[in-house]
Amino acid sequence: MTDPMLQAKMDSAILLALEEDMPAGDLSTMAVMPEPRRGRVQLIAKQDGVIAGLSVFARVFELIDPETCVEALVDDGDEVFAGQHIATVEGDVRVLLEGERTALNFLQRMSGIATYTRRIARFFEGTKTRLVCTRKTTPGLRIFEREAVRLGGGGLHRAGLSDAVMLKDNHIDAAGGVAAAVAAARATAPFTAKVEVECESLDMVREAVAAGADIIMLDNMGHDAMAEAIAYIGGRATVEASGNVSAENAAGYVDLGVDVVSCGALTHSAGILDLSLKHLEVFE
Amino acid sequence: MTDPMLQAKMDSAILLALEEDMPAGDLSTMAVMPEPRRGRVQLIAKQDGVIAGLSVFARVFELIDPETCVEALVDDGDEVFAGQHIATVEGDVRVLLEGERTALNFLQRMSGIATYTRRIARFFEGTKTRLVCTRKTTPGLRIFEREAVRLGGGGLHRAGLSDAVMLKDNHIDAAGGVAAAVAAARATAPFTAKVEVECESLDMVREAVAAGADIIMLDNMGHDAMAEAIAYIGGRATVEASGNVSAENAAGYVDLGVDVVSCGALTHSAGILDLSLKHLEVFE
Amino acid sequence: MTDPMLQAKMDSAILLALEEDMPAGDLSTMAVMPEPRRGRVQLIAKQDGVIAGLSVFARVFELIDPETCVEALVDDGDEVFAGQHIATVEGDVRVLLEGERTALNFLQRMSGIATYTRRIARFFEGTKTRLVCTRKTTPGLRIFEREAVRLGGGGLHRAGLSDAVMLKDNHIDAAGGVAAAVAAARATAPFTAKVEVECESLDMVREAVAAGADIIMLDNMGHDAMAEAIAYIGGRATVEASGNVSAENAAGYVDLGVDVVSCGALTHSAGILDLSLKHLEVFE
Amino acid sequence: MTDPMLQAKMDSAILLALEEDMPAGDLSTMAVMPEPRRGRVQLIAKQDGVIAGLSVFARVFELIDPETCVEALVDDGDEVFAGQHIATVEGDVRVLLEGERTALNFLQRMSGIATYTRRIARFFEGTKTRLVCTRKTTPGLRIFEREAVRLGGGGLHRAGLSDAVMLKDNHIDAAGGVAAAVAAARATAPFTAKVEVECESLDMVREAVAAGADIIMLDNMGHDAMAEAIAYIGGRATVEASGNVSAENAAGYVDLGVDVVSCGALTHSAGILDLSLKHLEVFE
Amino acid sequence: MTDPMLQAKMDSAILLALEEDMPAGDLSTMAVMPEPRRGRVQLIAKQDGVIAGLSVFARVFELIDPETCVEALVDDGDEVFAGQHIATVEGDVRVLLEGERTALNFLQRMSGIATYTRRIARFFEGTKTRLVCTRKTTPGLRIFEREAVRLGGGGLHRAGLSDAVMLKDNHIDAAGGVAAAVAAARATAPFTAKVEVECESLDMVREAVAAGADIIMLDNMGHDAMAEAIAYIGGRATVEASGNVSAENAAGYVDLGVDVVSCGALTHSAGILDLSLKHLEVFE
Amino acid sequence: MTDPMLQAKMDSAILLALEEDMPAGDLSTMAVMPEPRRGRVQLIAKQDGVIAGLSVFARVFELIDPETCVEALVDDGDEVFAGQHIATVEGDVRVLLEGERTALNFLQRMSGIATYTRRIARFFEGTKTRLVCTRKTTPGLRIFEREAVRLGGGGLHRAGLSDAVMLKDNHIDAAGGVAAAVAAARATAPFTAKVEVECESLDMVREAVAAGADIIMLDNMGHDAMAEAIAYIGGRATVEASGNVSAENAAGYVDLGVDVVSCGALTHSAGILDLSLKHLEVFE
Repeated sequence: MTDPMLQAKMDSAILLALEEDMPAGDLSTMAVMPEPRRGRVQLIAKQDGVIAGLSVFARVFELIDPETCVEALVDDGDEVFAGQHIATVEGDVRVLLEGERTALNFLQRMSGIATYTRRIARFFEGTKTRLVCTRKTTPGLRIFEREAVRLGGGGLHRAGLSDAVMLKDNHIDAAGGVAAAVAAARATAPFTAKVEVECESLDMVREAVAAGADIIMLDNMGHDAMAEAIAYIGGRATVEASGNVSAENAAGYVDLGVDVVSCGALTHSAGILDLSLKHLEVFE
Repeated sequence: MTDPMLQAKMDSAILLALEEDMPAGDLSTMAVMPEPRRGRVQLIAKQDGVIAGLSVFARVFELIDPETCVEALVDDGDEVFAGQHIATVEGDVRVLLEGERTALNFLQRMSGIATYTRRIARFFEGTKTRLVCTRKTTPGLRIFEREAVRLGGGGLHRAGLSDAVMLKDNHIDAAGGVAAAVAAARATAPFTAKVEVECESLDMVREAVAAGADIIMLDNMGHDAMAEAIAYIGGRATVEASGNVSAENAAGYVDLGVDVVSCGALTHSAGILDLSLKHLEVFE
Repeated sequence: MTDPMLQAKMDSAILLALEEDMPAGDLSTMAVMPEPRRGRVQLIAKQDGVIAGLSVFARVFELIDPETCVEALVDDGDEVFAGQHIATVEGDVRVLLEGERTALNFLQRMSGIATYTRRIARFFEGTKTRLVCTRKTTPGLRIFEREAVRLGGGGLHRAGLSDAVMLKDNHIDAAGGVAAAVAAARATAPFTAKVEVECESLDMVREAVAAGADIIMLDNMGHDAMAEAIAYIGGRATVEASGNVSAENAAGYVDLGVDVVSCGALTHSAGILDLSLKHLEVFE
Repeated sequence: MTDPMLQAKMDSAILLALEEDMPAGDLSTMAVMPEPRRGRVQLIAKQDGVIAGLSVFARVFELIDPETCVEALVDDGDEVFAGQHIATVEGDVRVLLEGERTALNFLQRMSGIATYTRRIARFFEGTKTRLVCTRKTTPGLRIFEREAVRLGGGGLHRAGLSDAVMLKDNHIDAAGGVAAAVAAARATAPFTAKVEVECESLDMVREAVAAGADIIMLDNMGHDAMAEAIAYIGGRATVEASGNVSAENAAGYVDLGVDVVSCGALTHSAGILDLSLKHLEVFE
Repeated sequence: MTDPMLQAKMDSAILLALEEDMPAGDLSTMAVMPEPRRGRVQLIAKQDGVIAGLSVFARVFELIDPETCVEALVDDGDEVFAGQHIATVEGDVRVLLEGERTALNFLQRMSGIATYTRRIARFFEGTKTRLVCTRKTTPGLRIFEREAVRLGGGGLHRAGLSDAVMLKDNHIDAAGGVAAAVAAARATAPFTAKVEVECESLDMVREAVAAGADIIMLDNMGHDAMAEAIAYIGGRATVEASGNVSAENAAGYVDLGVDVVSCGALTHSAGILDLSLKHLEVFE
Repeated sequence: MTDPMLQAKMDSAILLALEEDMPAGDLSTMAVMPEPRRGRVQLIAKQDGVIAGLSVFARVFELIDPETCVEALVDDGDEVFAGQHIATVEGDVRVLLEGERTALNFLQRMSGIATYTRRIARFFEGTKTRLVCTRKTTPGLRIFEREAVRLGGGGLHRAGLSDAVMLKDNHIDAAGGVAAAVAAARATAPFTAKVEVECESLDMVREAVAAGADIIMLDNMGHDAMAEAIAYIGGRATVEASGNVSAENAAGYVDLGVDVVSCGALTHSAGILDLSLKHLEVFE
């Protein structure tokens, strides 16, 4: 991970994954190699894509045995092609074998998200529009998946319910209207938090602008309705477009000139990027 | 979860997910509803599919507030159709709003896996062949994903490195051959563990049979080579076929009469099943 | 705690506190009362102040024994006077004795913070200025202390480094100036996060306004300089005044008409509110 | 911490504090400095006082990144003056910025306690009386606060309910009198634990002496009553004086010749010692 | 456990044990009973002995499923005979089967310790001598084993290194003699902690008495030397005799009139008490 | 531990043990040695036996202080004799003193189990019969105890309920017979898991063979009945003999020619191997 604090905190997720894979050790490896032997194995791409998560990959092996050494030949965020040699892992061969699946499970998922993100983000290159992920992440792995989106070229939405206000229909109903909901948020949330209103109609957009919302989300509105809303808002708030965005339909958002397009699919529906550990050498 | 012990142990994964979504509480909900109010919301399917994870979904809300009550209208493993009312959640409306995303993130993923599993498993209905998942699961969520596979109609492979022996090329090289590797496994692993050998050629299959392997995996072999191998083995070992199986190519495995087809895609590439919480009612 | 999620997550902090007080149980209580006996004790204020943390207080006893029942006679945030009966705790007398110190340690600190906050917040009543706390909280207890500030009538600053951007001199130097730092924040932080710039001079204020900062902090500037800065900003950004604010000097901030006054002393220097458990009755 | 075991166990408290401050990383720092750069910053005292907690301060940075190096120019327990350069922290500048607040939150509290302790302990220099802290500590931070008291020149009371017997009025009532309570404690508590009786009157003191208490606490008794009690006890038990001792009234205990004066205020009401990180240099 | 706090804290040890036994659920039970069915099973003694740990036994089942109900027919500390029906467990049969081994592993060990303790404690009935356990306990299970000793009729030594001072030869050497070591302990340890000196000769006993030790341990001294030491001490300190005490040689300590006999074997060498779950009934 | 993953995961058990022994540090050591001093101590056997757990022993000291260095003079699994010098521990003397008891508690138990295992395993040397341990292990310490059995020369049974199927009378009753129970297990458990049937009579053995069980356990059957059963099975399944096997009666199993003899006593009733730390040298 790029952020030193995120790097420091990822250990518990990795240990959890190792524990679920090896609650009582590795029967196969210990059968054939009861004593330590040094060796080396290569990480190879089996598909074209964007690599993400190399420091997580490396940390899996280091947590089993700090003597393991991972040398990456590319950087996180780089594009790789099928067959490319991406990294070399060197250490006790038993550690290489024990950590393989867990390290790949992290790396393949993160790289799959980065690859899918880059594919969609390309539509918006050269425009003012930012593609961002949502809270539809895998339970327990949000910091990994947001890092993958970032490495793929995406931007970030709020990290969760604690760092920004988003007022949806239920909140607005509970407060008795958009104006009351925004006022309540200004009165109770940290003054550092932006207030976003989720709008399903142009009428709601008008209310949100009047209430002084910082961000207005156009939720599942048609292309023309979005265009009309954006024109109405006229820069008085940041505008986010949302609604089952995917690689198939993202192009339709390009001409809108919206500030942000949010896309749950980046994290909930990207496939993995196929990678493998190959060419194990055992030193004499 | 069906198994009482798995039900009891899932709390830590849920708490982790809630914590990552709300490290400092829910700004939006607390702004508009500082006091508790009872209400009810419906879980609705937005796509056809197989539902899996209802007890996990319910537990998310109960961990925030034990007073929350979830009533399911279908059972885990049932097929649901777009628009179907699947469950009702009743409790403090703030709890319904706070738990919504996390509960759906679990349920959508598990249901997506169950749906994809059922789709592939149908090819093998009425045959002796069993479709099973692999260790290519999301880090930290293996028990949830295996349960989803089971509910989708799939079977299970080993849970991890501790509960069965699988000898791959690296293990065999380290031991000095198939026979030596199988012998080492018999000598050191629990006598209750089966020994599987991963074979990439008919020659290796012959060695594995001779060594008395319990299970022989045909790894990425072509259809004809697999048929020849299966004929050679002739029931002397359980046979597993493996190699990038997906909904697109699974039909090609049906006529082989293999015992087991393993498929990493069940857990690493199934999309989510789209579900949502709708029609919130707040009681007076 | 008011927020259901915060209520649900406070258990680990309480268990940690009980564990440090009783790693091997309570020698004194078990000596004189080896068998359970029901009884009741009263929580009494020994000073005037604002009560905060009653649900935490109650939870301490419930975690030792779910059969314990705490009935509060006042609400969190209420003012209490010396001698007032605040709550009654009923249950196994051994549980009342074992939980007493830990429950009071939480409640006294939270109430001390609420009391001190209210004392300073009073200066700003009827003005547009909001008093808020900072990140100078007790390690591990931030959610408790922010709740206490809120109950005392204060507002909240960002919860930590993850939920808003605050650019201090070091950040600005690293970026190569205010404009570059704000631009970098807009480019990388979640678009839902406000960007604040800490300014030590009117020149920096001018740069921050030009860079489009959402919030400008006037850091340790004199009264006249602050007045000049506020006039210059003229509503183009939210203004926060900061700098060793305490009960002794808070009045000096009232006439400025600043949006926010932040005060680390609310959490790092409030004394406790003296409270005690008295009048134990043991039932026959 | 001085004790190797306490040093080893403090990590979990520090990680908890870092996690609450940065659940999703540091937005500000990562915006302006996405790549690592080495640098150095100075820890400077802003008030006169006693420094305590330097190893905790250092450990905060090391837990984020083991490459960080903290060089202290003074020892824990040393007196420092406003403006004094206390330590230098060198490492990845992002780590210096991310750890700053948490490291200071620990160090300022511990130093505040040490400073306040030394101020009161001075009254008793050259006498037989020992000043000690109580169990009125911050939940979860007792080992840090006791270490701070020790560094300030104070002594220690029991660490909690598990390491010594203290019989208060409720225990005595439950047992049916002082003699019965002491006898019960001798019969059930580890024979290595001293037995203390809390006395509110001279009559109770007489009973406690008769019962063979190891320690007698004079609880909130007036100066003359305490003097009379001490004379009566005449060395037959260790004597502890207690009752809202603070810097304001501690002098009144000096002439009593009591063995121990206990003071909850050392940990529950000491303000912080103001310290800051200054003069950041970023290396080329 | 008798102490409410110990009862509350034992859950983590039980969950750890369940987790190591069932990292991926119970294959056997789920195969034959996929749906819940109520039933009942009896806990039967297979040997004569003292029962200890019934609340731990019950808690194992309740942690898997709170609906399980355990009714004990005897109390902890009671003597039971081979064939006696001790308790009934009622609930989901799958829970009874899943918890069986873990519940018995706790109960059999605790009962084995209680049984062995009672056997040795009997030698000292009617004398002033107390039999106590030591720190030679199973790692992680000390609170369970001390409770078992207590239920068997034994007393307690210090719980660990934090609750009393014991000066062994290494400590004495480091301090430069017995007097210096005792003085150092008085100066730094909590004044509530007793100071014990481990003596291997009469000379050391003399030094320890002179230094004012609270407790003197006679370590592996012969019977006559102990008698001489006890006479010399003459009540000036509590006397503990130590040295590979077991059921075989305990009688030799009876006539000494020592205060305390400590015995590591109580916890490190007691066998288990054989118990089993029998007569499962499955309700219709 | 030999397996790198087990080595990596043992830290939490060790930290738990250190924490229970020193919740508030080591009073005695800190009294006499407030400053670090380097020194060295020897690990000496006080009995003949098999040593097991040297890496656990070393890790205890390293977790308190990574600067501690343990040099072993023998290997795990080696036989040692009374008086033999086994290892040297060098480091801060305070760390040597603080870790001593916990390190020995682990090592003595593991070595006791290894010693007892070797004693029984000798009976089966040169035969086809394998001695294995069971699930009757100390709660929370199973990986340590299985490693000790392995080092003593024993083999392993299933690690727990998740890695193999064992059908006992209750499972068979629930399924409606042996054939139905085996079929249910084949249908639901991972296909990699062997299915074992526990048989109490020859009739059940016949049913188990007919049902195709992989392993048949002869549970508490007499010698002649076992011989008859083994002859009947005739190699059609692996055969395990079980029933209160101990050092006293193991010889009676030798002539049976059974595949596996399982023995709960290996882990629940082996005494410790007596070891101690001696000859502390403190360097100048």
